[in-house]
Amino acid sequence: MTRWFAVLFLLVAGIARADEGMWTFNNFPSDLVKARYGFAPSQEWLTKVRRSTARIAGGCSASFVSPNGLVMTNHHCVRECVQQLSTPQTDFIVKGFYAATAQQERQCPAFEVNKLVDITDVTAELTKATQGKEGAAFRDAQRAEIARLEKACATAADIRCDVVTLYRGGMYNLYKYQRFQDVRLVFAPEEAIAFFGGDPDNFEFPRYDYDVSFVRVYQDGKPAKVDDYLRWSARGAQDGELTFVAGNPGGTSRLLTVAQLTYQRDYALPERLFQLAQMRGMLDEFQQRGPEFTRISNNLKFGVENSYKALVGRREALVDRDFFAKKVAEEQKLREWVKADATRQQRFGQAWDNIAKATDTLREMRLRLRLLEQSAGAGSDLFGYARALVRASEELPKPNEQRLEEYAEARKPELEQQLFSPAPVYPKLEEALLTFYLTKLREQLGPDDPVVKKVLGKQSPRALASKAVSNSRLANPQVRRQLYTGGAAALGSSKDSMVELVRVLDEEARAIRKRYEEEVESVADKNGELIARARFEAYGTSTYPDATFTLRLSFGQVKGYQGGDGKPVPPFTQVAGLFERATGEDPFRLPPSWLQAKPRLELQTPFDFVSSNDIIGGNSGSPIFNKDAEVVGIVFDGNIQSLGGEYGFDESVNRTVSVHSQGILEGLRKVYNARRLLEELGQGGGG
Amino acid sequence: MTRWFAVLFLLVAGIARADEGMWTFNNFPSDLVKARYGFAPSQEWLTKVRRSTARIAGGCSASFVSPNGLVMTNHHCVRECVQQLSTPQTDFIVKGFYAATAQQERQCPAFEVNKLVDITDVTAELTKATQGKEGAAFRDAQRAEIARLEKACATAADIRCDVVTLYRGGMYNLYKYQRFQDVRLVFAPEEAIAFFGGDPDNFEFPRYDYDVSFVRVYQDGKPAKVDDYLRWSARGAQDGELTFVAGNPGGTSRLLTVAQLTYQRDYALPERLFQLAQMRGMLDEFQQRGPEFTRISNNLKFGVENSYKALVGRREALVDRDFFAKKVAEEQKLREWVKADATRQQRFGQAWDNIAKATDTLREMRLRLRLLEQSAGAGSDLFGYARALVRASEELPKPNEQRLEEYAEARKPELEQQLFSPAPVYPKLEEALLTFYLTKLREQLGPDDPVVKKVLGKQSPRALASKAVSNSRLANPQVRRQLYTGGAAALGSSKDSMVELVRVLDEEARAIRKRYEEEVESVADKNGELIARARFEAYGTSTYPDATFTLRLSFGQVKGYQGGDGKPVPPFTQVAGLFERATGEDPFRLPPSWLQAKPRLELQTPFDFVSSNDIIGGNSGSPIFNKDAEVVGIVFDGNIQSLGGEYGFDESVNRTVSVHSQGILEGLRKVYNARRLLEELGQGGGG
Repeated sequence: MTRWFAVLFLLVAGIARADEGMWTFNNFPSDLVKARYGFAPSQEWLTKVRRSTARIAGGCSASFVSPNGLVMTNHHCVRECVQQLSTPQTDFIVKGFYAATAQQERQCPAFEVNKLVDITDVTAELTKATQGKEGAAFRDAQRAEIARLEKACATAADIRCDVVTLYRGGMYNLYKYQRFQDVRLVFAPEEAIAFFGGDPDNFEFPRYDYDVSFVRVYQDGKPAKVDDYLRWSARGAQDGELTFVAGNPGGTSRLLTVAQLTYQRDYALPERLFQLAQMRGMLDEFQQRGPEFTRISNNLKFGVENSYKALVGRREALVDRDFFAKKVAEEQKLREWVKADATRQQRFGQAWDNIAKATDTLREMRLRLRLLEQSAGAGSDLFGYARALVRASEELPKPNEQRLEEYAEARKPELEQQLFSPAPVYPKLEEALLTFYLTKLREQLGPDDPVVKKVLGKQSPRALASKAVSNSRLANPQVRRQLYTGGAAALGSSKDSMVELVRVLDEEARAIRKRYEEEVESVADKNGELIARARFEAYGTSTYPDATFTLRLSFGQVKGYQGGDGKPVPPFTQVAGLFERATGEDPFRLPPSWLQAKPRLELQTPFDFVSSNDIIGGNSGSPIFNKDAEVVGIVFDGNIQSLGGEYGFDESVNRTVSVHSQGILEGLRKVYNARRLLEELGQGGGG
Repeated sequence: MTRWFAVLFLLVAGIARADEGMWTFNNFPSDLVKARYGFAPSQEWLTKVRRSTARIAGGCSASFVSPNGLVMTNHHCVRECVQQLSTPQTDFIVKGFYAATAQQERQCPAFEVNKLVDITDVTAELTKATQGKEGAAFRDAQRAEIARLEKACATAADIRCDVVTLYRGGMYNLYKYQRFQDVRLVFAPEEAIAFFGGDPDNFEFPRYDYDVSFVRVYQDGKPAKVDDYLRWSARGAQDGELTFVAGNPGGTSRLLTVAQLTYQRDYALPERLFQLAQMRGMLDEFQQRGPEFTRISNNLKFGVENSYKALVGRREALVDRDFFAKKVAEEQKLREWVKADATRQQRFGQAWDNIAKATDTLREMRLRLRLLEQSAGAGSDLFGYARALVRASEELPKPNEQRLEEYAEARKPELEQQLFSPAPVYPKLEEALLTFYLTKLREQLGPDDPVVKKVLGKQSPRALASKAVSNSRLANPQVRRQLYTGGAAALGSSKDSMVELVRVLDEEARAIRKRYEEEVESVADKNGELIARARFEAYGTSTYPDATFTLRLSFGQVKGYQGGDGKPVPPFTQVAGLFERATGEDPFRLPPSWLQAKPRLELQTPFDFVSSNDIIGGNSGSPIFNKDAEVVGIVFDGNIQSLGGEYGFDESVNRTVSVHSQGILEGLRKVYNARRLLEELGQGGGG
């Protein structure tokens, strides 16, 4: 009898699978959650949760936590804004920021919050538009239809509409958002506590970070009213408790073909890592020139180090023999299912080889594509502004359907917010980045390449970079606005050095992008659609699409795991551990506020914790909540084992890392004495 | 008739194979050269050539070019010496160096030239010593026998003896060298012309480098007399001419198993490149701190950039699907031949799997091995000195056969020369390198690793590095000498900060090295021997061993090739092209000497050229000569396509790059007016 029971249990577990999946709200497996955890989210519950969450356009997630537009997210999601609001005299990254009154809330220079309003299936429209087309024709038809759908949907500047490709082309949905561009900073702790442990502790656990911040969305100069928001849990996350994460995972590659994964493993990831590693070395040493050099480059350095560590983890997943073999076997299985039937073989059989061929094309063009288009400028703001201006002057006069996608009518509010941002530009950093870029351009295309010759002439990369930065006036947003509104005539006659540099490159850059879109992207899209349909036919739709920086819901539970050294890692850390870990030296140096507050703090308060939710980059700032939709913490990281989650989920060790809700409150109360904020969170009584 | 002839020709060509091979002097395929080029080197010819060449212990090749110990090599092979002889006031890297009189020749601080005297086969001795042993026992027996053989051979301080493992263990030879440690700089051009085009032109062709230098070996304070040396060719290299290169290729991996190649592809190469890329970024920016920062770090920067580009090329060869598939097929073929016979299967069958298992072990221990042992200190001289002192004090009292190999009796002259070198130590650079090292240590082992905790305590990597450098007196060679001669007692009581740092790490470092030697290296050695024997039995010995930084001879011809863009690349460049390529900006800025000499120069003089000789890193400085053993140039590089030569040779595009002998003379005559040198080369009349 016992034995039978065990078998039965195994079968159920087999059906219930793992805590895997970044599920869309319109295909959430409530039955699966019920089977595993005894709770089935209702449609009502899902709607409420969906309406309580938000997306930060720059690449993060967030939640509404009061009826007055108060938004909770990570410190590292508002880090750029905090740096932009700082000056050499007042560095909010170092000293933190708290608006004790509504008047003290400060607008972020280029920050956009999106609240999802509606999802419409537009698969039929897209399929019809591209039917029978290939290559350039497929791409043009697809782009035109997307531009048309988005424009028709975005009826006002504060409505944002994105057509989203799900299941690598198996489904197209139109996501409609309310767009908030007036976003003001309410609270940001010192980076020393938000990112305590810095790069060495990044993606690690046990962890001691207070990575939480608050902003507020405004409408017509007043705090926006929202109907749905998340309340606070009384106890916060408990061991073994069922947890949900609602957020916007940026992208996963779990449905890529073996040819595409091989390309990632052998070319895309290592080559990106070579660039990041070099830039990291450059920034480390750049900061040695003085404290102001550190201040202006810290945000970039954080981003570079974070990407570096994340991609190292991804690469390691792909070079793992067993992991890769599983991917090969999965593909083989589907291909064999296709082959077993002549009709299926005719419909889908060529898809994998077509993608493999396109991947070969990509391999051959990858350096030019990266240098001239995808990573041109290596992050220089001035270069980015110049390119946006040059292209806007050429694209905006065209019919909406024929523009490069980022200049389509529906995208203009975003474009203009970025372009007119009053955020400071740092010439020394600009010079370093542009030197880096031009050096790489010459190194990787070779000094005899016609583009390189045209760009550099007889100049060295550093000399040209220095000249281009010092002779450009684009750091001034007014100048950018004049050039933008002046259109092609203004741009054409501009002698701005950065505009001139972009102009020299742009013909080649556009050409290689066009080739990429027609010969690689459109082939991958079209054949990806075919594979997705084959997968639906073989396995049904009881699966989730790759992440696409759109709203997803994942479930899991608070749960420790076994570390790399074989020892168990408990799910919680406590405030006490933070003080034990502090060394007094950066990045393990506590800010004065925490050191002073120590006697008042309840040292056993849970600080950070892990859960088995399936997340990835972009989920930063997501609320993590219980079955009553109450906040039990805020997601800020994954553990090191979760980095392979790009390609597949391993429930035994993949973990989401969150700040515990009790830890958040303890800090707000006893370290920051943030009464106004606590009251708004319904936690005023405890202060 | 014609058709028959063609078939016959193809068969011969089939036997004659390609211009592939870095052949040992005791197994040179004269017949093969005869078949391809109509000239069979005689034993006498080989002996003369062998005696005319030299090795630079630091990792280069060279040749004797006068009876008075004059040695020709590359500028980049004496670069370190040139920097060490420079001061902030007089930078010979920038202005070049020429000793117009014998008295002006200047001793290089730590430079060793080796002249091969004799080769003895010691395969039987080694095989006997290790028979029936495995793991630690195999390793200990092998090391003891090698130490014994080398000590017995090295009867004087100026005799150097190295046991060399050929064919990955198929053969062991004892190489006996005359050792010259008094080496003086005679001529070095400005780096701006020696390395014209810098990193962008490195490994490229067409090329315009004057990468040649001269040093002189001394004995008892006088120029050493040598019986054999190479004369100068009257015309220099001609298109299509048969050429030989005699030199010391550092290492190739053409006989590695697929498991080992996979490890190289997925772990060793990318991870080394991540380090190099970061260090490169660091050095680029370090140099921005001022001209003196540039001067002291230029040598390192050159090395880092050179390795980076070389390893990028190697990695690209291994991720090439077709190339890798060929390697897999080759191994499969040999394994099947082994399997086809039960005795063979019993003798050799397990070898590949054993190596694969050892490679898995290596993968698992690789980070600790690299950080604690192989790359500990990240190139800091002070760290290197401290470690050598600490270990010498422990190793030298042991019996010769039980020491770590670099402390064996026969290696002491080298150890002591390095240790007592008067070369300057640059504290700022030391600090940067040590910070880099300690940061990586913490990053890759994690801040909670016991070694990391022990090393750093509560300090940051930068704080500790700065303290360790400023509180160390090891920059002074006298201090090092005292500690060395003081032995364990002196070291034990030393409070030198760098000695203390090394001491904290050393137990763990030795432990991981021991584990590596016993569980990885000895397994690869033992099973490599088995595979080598299987290969001999299957294919005979008509093949060449992987390179081992010992003297090899390669043949080929002056020959252009087809570039990556499909266009033909002619085999020669001329002086005229140098002036056309110059931009006036570094690294395309010509030194004043060449600009001033331009009117006097014969602009059609050949400058650099390519040939199909099979070479690799370590061959730098090798003479390239014709069938009359006359110098037609000096090897200084391979083209970009040759970088995959680490794993296999592709005659269609792999090329050796040399400075043409006529170009060398033109410069010596008309740019440098180096009469004394020209006369010694027998070229005085032309001056």
